[in-house]
Amino acid sequence: MNKIGKFRVIHQDGIARVGKLSTLHGTINTPIFMPVGTRGCVKSLSPQDLDEIGSEIILGNTYHLYLRPGDDLIKKLGGLHRFSGWYRPILTDSGGFQVFSLSPLRKISDQGVLFRSHIDGSKHMFTPSKVISIQENLGSDIMMVLDECVPYGTDYEYTKKSLALTTKWARECYNARTNSHQLLFGIVQGGFFPDLREESAKQLSAIPFDGFAIGGLSVGEPKDVMFNILEKTVPLLPLERPRYLMGVGKPLDIIKAIEMGVDMFDCVLPTRNARNGTLYTSIGKINIKKQEFKQDESPLDPNCTCYTCRNFSRAYLRHLYTTKELLSYRLNTIHNLSYYLNLVKEARYHIKNKTFSQFKDKIEETFKQS
Amino acid sequence: MNKIGKFRVIHQDGIARVGKLSTLHGTINTPIFMPVGTRGCVKSLSPQDLDEIGSEIILGNTYHLYLRPGDDLIKKLGGLHRFSGWYRPILTDSGGFQVFSLSPLRKISDQGVLFRSHIDGSKHMFTPSKVISIQENLGSDIMMVLDECVPYGTDYEYTKKSLALTTKWARECYNARTNSHQLLFGIVQGGFFPDLREESAKQLSAIPFDGFAIGGLSVGEPKDVMFNILEKTVPLLPLERPRYLMGVGKPLDIIKAIEMGVDMFDCVLPTRNARNGTLYTSIGKINIKKQEFKQDESPLDPNCTCYTCRNFSRAYLRHLYTTKELLSYRLNTIHNLSYYLNLVKEARYHIKNKTFSQFKDKIEETFKQS
Repeated sequence: MNKIGKFRVIHQDGIARVGKLSTLHGTINTPIFMPVGTRGCVKSLSPQDLDEIGSEIILGNTYHLYLRPGDDLIKKLGGLHRFSGWYRPILTDSGGFQVFSLSPLRKISDQGVLFRSHIDGSKHMFTPSKVISIQENLGSDIMMVLDECVPYGTDYEYTKKSLALTTKWARECYNARTNSHQLLFGIVQGGFFPDLREESAKQLSAIPFDGFAIGGLSVGEPKDVMFNILEKTVPLLPLERPRYLMGVGKPLDIIKAIEMGVDMFDCVLPTRNARNGTLYTSIGKINIKKQEFKQDESPLDPNCTCYTCRNFSRAYLRHLYTTKELLSYRLNTIHNLSYYLNLVKEARYHIKNKTFSQFKDKIEETFKQS
Repeated sequence: MNKIGKFRVIHQDGIARVGKLSTLHGTINTPIFMPVGTRGCVKSLSPQDLDEIGSEIILGNTYHLYLRPGDDLIKKLGGLHRFSGWYRPILTDSGGFQVFSLSPLRKISDQGVLFRSHIDGSKHMFTPSKVISIQENLGSDIMMVLDECVPYGTDYEYTKKSLALTTKWARECYNARTNSHQLLFGIVQGGFFPDLREESAKQLSAIPFDGFAIGGLSVGEPKDVMFNILEKTVPLLPLERPRYLMGVGKPLDIIKAIEMGVDMFDCVLPTRNARNGTLYTSIGKINIKKQEFKQDESPLDPNCTCYTCRNFSRAYLRHLYTTKELLSYRLNTIHNLSYYLNLVKEARYHIKNKTFSQFKDKIEETFKQS
C-alpha cells in the first residue's frame, strides 16, 4: 500500500501513461473516467450499480451539496461516503464552476465570489477557505481549489488578471487545508493564451499540490483550439503528479487527451446523453428512439457485457424510452458509463502494450461513422 | 413437479390457506402479492431488482401492451418474458378494466367493447376472443377473461344484465383459448348485491377455469361493504382453485382478505406510493419528505433487510426525494415492494403455524398508529 496521495506512473506509451493514485478510500487506476454524481448520487444509479460497472471514483458537486442538503448536515451524518453509500474514492469540485454557470447573480472580488442560490435566491459567499472547509466537511478524497473559469472569448487583460486571482486563491486554498488525507488539486487557467497558460502552470507547480487540473477548456471553443492549448499546457505540469482535464468529454476527446498525457476525466455527457436516449457503442453513437430499432432484438452493443446489453434488446430499450419508463434512464446510464469505463480500461491496456496509437485510430474510425 | 395449473393447498388456519400454484415459468407460493408491471416493467425496477426482493410473479397490463409496443411485436420478439427480461411467472389482465378507466370513449355490446386509445385516439375493439389472442401473443402464465366492472352505485338491474354478459364473455374466453400452458382465470362480478355475486360465482364455477378472481371491489365503496361482499363471495368459489382479489390493497386489507381465504393480490399502491414518498414500514406508514427525517441516520425500517434499508439513511432518502433524484423512485419502490412481499411471506408462515389471527392483530396495530 502506498502513502495517501502517492501517484506512480507504471507504464508509458509516448506521453500517454498508466498510473496508480492512492487515496484514503482506495487506489485509482489512471487514465480514469469519473462519473458525475452531482447531488451525492450519479443520476438514476445506486452505489451497487456503480460498483458493477467498474467505477473507481465518482465526482460530487460542492455547490449543489452545499445548498442541499448542506455540508454541515453531511458532516454530521459521517461524510459524503456514508451519506451516499458509496465507499470508494470521491472527488469534489470547488463549486466555482457552478456559481458561474448556475447562479443568477455573482460578484467576484479578491476575497471570493458572492452569489445567489439558483434554488431559493439566498445569498452566499464562496472564499478559498470556505470551499476547502465545505469539501473537508464532505470528506471527499480529492478536493479542488477555487478558481475563476473565464468564458471563451475573454480578452487578454481580463484573463491575465483573473489568472493572478486564481493563483492567489489556489495558495489560500492550500493554506486552508487542515489535513493531508484529503488530497488537493490545483487548477491551471489562462484562457486561450499560451503564455498565460504557461504562467499559470508555473505558478501553480510551485505549490505542492497532489495533482493538477486543467480548467477553462471545453467552454465553447473549437476542438482544435482546445487541443492546441492542452498540448502546450500538459508538458508544463509536474510529471510525477496526476493531471485532470475538467469537463471533457466525448470518447475521442478523452482518447486524444490521454495521448497528450492526461490522467483523469469527468463529464456529464455519458449520463446526460443516456437520459436523452443517445448511447455510445463499439459501432458508434445510437439514438435508441429511432423507428429502426422497433423490432430489433439484438443487444444495444454486441461487444458490451454490461447488465443492459446482457439482458435486453434494442426493441425493449426503445419501448422503455418511448413510454418514458423510469427504468429507461437507468439501463441507458449503466450502458453509457460502462462504455466510458471500458474505454479508459482499454486505453490503459493499450498504453501498457505500446499500441495506443492504433487504439486511437480505432476509436476515431468508430465515431467517424456515426 | 406438478402439472401446469395444479394448485395444492398445503396448510390452513381457519379459512386462510397456504398453497402452491404451478405455472409454465415456475411455482408460486400463495398467499402472494403481485407487483404491477404495467408496460412490461415494474416502474423503476429491473428484473434483477424484482428477483432480489423476492417477487414470484408480476402483472402486466394487456391494454397498455396491446397499444404499445403491440402484442404482435412482443410475440415476434419471443413473448413478454423474453422482451422484458423477466423469466418468472407473469399474469396479464384482460385489458377491460383499463378500457373502462382510461379510454375517452367506450361502447359496450354483446360482442365486446369498442374504445379509443388514450394515447392517440385510435379506435379498437376488445372481444373475448381478441383479449385471449392478445394474452396468448404476450405469452403470460395466467390470463384473465374479459369482464365488465361496474362502478360502485350501479343499480340492480344494470348489474344483473352486466353480470350475464360477463358470464357469456367468460365462456367465450374459455372457448377461445388455444393452449392449456397458459392458465385462465374467470372473474366474479355482481356489484354489491350478494345474490348477484352468488349467481356469478355459480355460473363461473361451472366453467373449468384454473382460478377465480373477484373483480369489481375496491372501486370506491366503504371498506366494510367490500369485506361484506368478499366474505360472502369466497365460500362460493371452488376450494381447490386459487382465488385472486383484483386491485387490493393496503397491507391490512390484504391480511383481512387472506383471513377470508384469498390467495392472490395485485395493487399499484406500494409502487405508486413509493414514487410519492409514502413508505410502508414495520412501524407504520412514513412520509419520507417530512422535515423530521432531515438528520435521521436510521434506516427507513429498522426491521427490514431490503437493499434500501441495508444501505441508506432516512436522511439520504429524504434528500433524494426532495431533490427529485431518479434513484429515489427506485430505492423507495424496492422498499415498499419488499414490505408487501415480506407481509405475504409472514402471512404464509403464520398460517402454517396457526398463528394468523395474532399476526393480523399485529398488522392492525401497526397501521392504527400511522
